Amino acid sequence: MSAEEQQKRRLIRERIRDFPDFPSPGIIFRDISPMLKDPVAFKTAIDLLESYIKASHQDIDYIAGLDSRGFLFGPVLAQRLGVGFLLVRKKGKLPGSTESVSYALEYGKAELEVQKDAVKPGQKVIIVDDLLATGGTMRAACELMTKLQADILDCLVLIELTFLKGVEALKPFP
Amino acid sequence: MSAEEQQKRRLIRERIRDFPDFPSPGIIFRDISPMLKDPVAFKTAIDLLESYIKASHQDIDYIAGLDSRGFLFGPVLAQRLGVGFLLVRKKGKLPGSTESVSYALEYGKAELEVQKDAVKPGQKVIIVDDLLATGGTMRAACELMTKLQADILDCLVLIELTFLKGVEALKPFP
Repeated sequence: MSAEEQQKRRLIRERIRDFPDFPSPGIIFRDISPMLKDPVAFKTAIDLLESYIKASHQDIDYIAGLDSRGFLFGPVLAQRLGVGFLLVRKKGKLPGSTESVSYALEYGKAELEVQKDAVKPGQKVIIVDDLLATGGTMRAACELMTKLQADILDCLVLIELTFLKGVEALKPFP
Repeated sequence: MSAEEQQKRRLIRERIRDFPDFPSPGIIFRDISPMLKDPVAFKTAIDLLESYIKASHQDIDYIAGLDSRGFLFGPVLAQRLGVGFLLVRKKGKLPGSTESVSYALEYGKAELEVQKDAVKPGQKVIIVDDLLATGGTMRAACELMTKLQADILDCLVLIELTFLKGVEALKPFP
């Protein structure tokens, strides 16, 4: 990693606050509010994600963002790259014909949903969220995209809690 | 309104689908998914909001976006304008010390929350959401910002359902 990239990562890390025992005991909540409030830090985070994507992938049809903090990054990235944005939402939020997948959360249970016409078979999608913890949400999003026969190019997050080993839950996917 | 602006508005309108009786009977759901999937239409929507803001306001500290579809527009706009982005979230999602306001929805009831340190007194904020229906959510966001003694410059939405007279609910605010 270059010194410049290290510096960029440091700036972002400095703008993320830890709140222990939120939303439940034993969980450390990573609060990205200070980063979002600082336009330079927010831009830097998007720059890093954009550079990575441009270096790794060529033809992209859509950025898919996960409800609701993936919505903070996905649309900005999609506009930077000049590609469309897809909504992956919590159950009951999307009208029309949908596919859904249920999954276990770090704290609780939930269900994700996409519209059946969101992607055509073979279209290339990058899935974006703010944070990877146990990987349950991202895995559910991958399963949804697989149901629609999308070509998942990559799964991107801003923060990875490596001790929770979310990457292992995503092993079947890129 | 110029012919160019009319054309831009027409493009956006063509990318919004109506789903009657969703999420409950009698409600027409405006689905912005096709707009988000079309990078040109999405860019056009942001262009219109940005031009309006630049023509109407000078010093802006923050764009505040409402959970969760305000998150789709707010961060893109904030980055375009080079200002910070604030989270106005549904109850229970934000760590630390918060202020909250409860309100009646078009279908149901809910509570909005901000972190107490989100804004300093006198800081200038523009509140953004996707849609104005009865105005209950936007009004709650205005009340929250008022609690923090923020200076609300404007409330912006992409879609206004004029027959629901949401603007009247916002009369006490700009």
